[in-house]
Amino acid sequence: MKHPFIALLTDFGTEDGYVAAMKGRILSEAPEVRLIDISHSIKPFNVRQAAFCLNNSYPYFPEKTIFVVVVDPGVGTSRHGIVVKTSQHYFIGPDNGVFSFVIRREGFQAFRILLDAFEEPVSPTFHGRDVFVRLAAWLANGQTLPNYLSPVKKIDSFLNPPQKISGRELILEVFHIDHFGNMVLNLHRNDLLEYDDLSRMRVRIGEVELNSLLDTFGAAEKGALLLSWDSSDFLQIAQNMGSAARQLKAAIGDQVYLYL
Amino acid sequence: MKHPFIALLTDFGTEDGYVAAMKGRILSEAPEVRLIDISHSIKPFNVRQAAFCLNNSYPYFPEKTIFVVVVDPGVGTSRHGIVVKTSQHYFIGPDNGVFSFVIRREGFQAFRILLDAFEEPVSPTFHGRDVFVRLAAWLANGQTLPNYLSPVKKIDSFLNPPQKISGRELILEVFHIDHFGNMVLNLHRNDLLEYDDLSRMRVRIGEVELNSLLDTFGAAEKGALLLSWDSSDFLQIAQNMGSAARQLKAAIGDQVYLYL
Amino acid sequence: MKHPFIALLTDFGTEDGYVAAMKGRILSEAPEVRLIDISHSIKPFNVRQAAFCLNNSYPYFPEKTIFVVVVDPGVGTSRHGIVVKTSQHYFIGPDNGVFSFVIRREGFQAFRILLDAFEEPVSPTFHGRDVFVRLAAWLANGQTLPNYLSPVKKIDSFLNPPQKISGRELILEVFHIDHFGNMVLNLHRNDLLEYDDLSRMRVRIGEVELNSLLDTFGAAEKGALLLSWDSSDFLQIAQNMGSAARQLKAAIGDQVYLYL
Repeated sequence: MKHPFIALLTDFGTEDGYVAAMKGRILSEAPEVRLIDISHSIKPFNVRQAAFCLNNSYPYFPEKTIFVVVVDPGVGTSRHGIVVKTSQHYFIGPDNGVFSFVIRREGFQAFRILLDAFEEPVSPTFHGRDVFVRLAAWLANGQTLPNYLSPVKKIDSFLNPPQKISGRELILEVFHIDHFGNMVLNLHRNDLLEYDDLSRMRVRIGEVELNSLLDTFGAAEKGALLLSWDSSDFLQIAQNMGSAARQLKAAIGDQVYLYL
Repeated sequence: MKHPFIALLTDFGTEDGYVAAMKGRILSEAPEVRLIDISHSIKPFNVRQAAFCLNNSYPYFPEKTIFVVVVDPGVGTSRHGIVVKTSQHYFIGPDNGVFSFVIRREGFQAFRILLDAFEEPVSPTFHGRDVFVRLAAWLANGQTLPNYLSPVKKIDSFLNPPQKISGRELILEVFHIDHFGNMVLNLHRNDLLEYDDLSRMRVRIGEVELNSLLDTFGAAEKGALLLSWDSSDFLQIAQNMGSAARQLKAAIGDQVYLYL
Repeated sequence: MKHPFIALLTDFGTEDGYVAAMKGRILSEAPEVRLIDISHSIKPFNVRQAAFCLNNSYPYFPEKTIFVVVVDPGVGTSRHGIVVKTSQHYFIGPDNGVFSFVIRREGFQAFRILLDAFEEPVSPTFHGRDVFVRLAAWLANGQTLPNYLSPVKKIDSFLNPPQKISGRELILEVFHIDHFGNMVLNLHRNDLLEYDDLSRMRVRIGEVELNSLLDTFGAAEKGALLLSWDSSDFLQIAQNMGSAARQLKAAIGDQVYLYL
């Protein structure tokens, strides 16, 4: 089988049967495919959370895995469906920024999905079932899809780089809050390669200042806030044995000042 | 393998390990079976939600898939376990209405499960693990089960048809509210085949009237309520980028008037 | 394949992609492995809930299944990772009590994981991805792991036996509350083998006394509290068609008096 794994990421929850409809259709078209659930607990319409979830996981998957992402508030509007091909993987979903990390990290080719090419009926509210997983199953079976895809140069992204005030001061934003309340900031470890010495690094959020960049949560006292690199090497504000976001009443988009 | 796929639908949540016990038992009895999670997030004891979830998904699954549904508030009482066989699939679970859609849509044979036939002990509170998945695994292995099954003519269903007041006025009910707050009504698109012209169709719920039957949510303004056919062709009240149920404070069972 | 099944149990939720990273890494290292989700809904840091979930499910899994458990509040501290080998299964995770039931029920050998043996970088906050599933995949592939493991005699357990006041009076504790609100007590059916007659057994929790040890919930009136053996044969306080824990405002650790 050309592409043995199809991984699914949606904001559907599972309780309405929409995810299962997608699974059933894949197995009907490509019975040998092995399905992997990434998540179906993305908050409804939360494209950024889905992008982050994908970023944390896709690099670990085997070559040729096909990712189908259906977090799609614009389904049925003029937003396009896309297929993104990198050297390792395929990604299929709406062109709404959900692949922002993938295209920042990987060389890629992108293709717009041509809805008119589908002979079977396409529900205007459920492209996941009627468009995206069909293409995924056909790809898995080794079909090429020239009639369904048209190359495009540019696709949507929401990733803002940190805002530089001076060489020693940046404005970051909280761009994700994870399951444990860790606040992930839009600063990657690689963004600081030009700085030799991070020993004086500190951040300020509201009235709170933090300067302890630690390797592990356990190195802080219980309940203490700390800075660390998350497991994808983004800077995060965390709390040992607690939720930093709750402690700081933080929300996505909140500004954080970084001093180097 | 005769039946390579077993799909699981429960109200157990996963955190107590009851679903995993079922998975383990299936793989112990039939190691080649491929398991598919439909959902384990059905609200506890909510047979109607499970039935709806199954309705949205089972038609897409490959021929010979076996569905095991364990939403079973009556376990241990006089309710019977059943096996339902359609031309395409097997369904195993309690006889409590959870297969209402299946038997409305498909020709079927039904069989009552004979508990006395089991030699191994059967927990009175967990037929999912000790009865239903055992039968599923044995079927998957190609066994026939004459000692365990006894044909029955009629099984339980909760599906009420819309109530007709006149040829142009029906009383519907909200019979499901999905993950996004869409309110699904007990009217299938096929129930209106006799009506040529749906252009004047409107519904009233409480003080609110709606007459915009739209193809996509995005065709309504942000926050506007609308009517549409859901992805299984039931009529639904939805809100563009929001929860219709929350906006209307709607609950399952609420009456909705339909004027044609 | 030597160990065809790897079963995963975490408190990660799925929405951040951490579980999917683990799945991807397993399939990259051992593409033939079949993954089983036990649960990713364990309450954050709730080692006891994870232990209970594992206890309810592991005995049903096929021989040679490898269980990877990542409920790991101490990751990055001095707590060790361990591999536990029983006659049937492997268990991999932190040495924090999460295998308490396994080692009470099974003969076992235990091994401490030697972090220094890993050549690839190990994230100090994510041993699930960088340590535990790697070992699982290598075991699945049939590798022996002498360099990574060092035998240990004793591993952590939190299982307290019931406290005996007299031959006829014991103090139990609520050590788990399940998805349905059933309150599981630290008394296994086998703990009472010395008592011939359980007919006068009763429990007291706060002001409430219960003396109805029933086979099924349905044998009680709707809304009534009852005693029963749970599906793993622990004593539980339940409510027919309701949540005993909510009714009794119970919490884990609450004391319950048992009179025989």
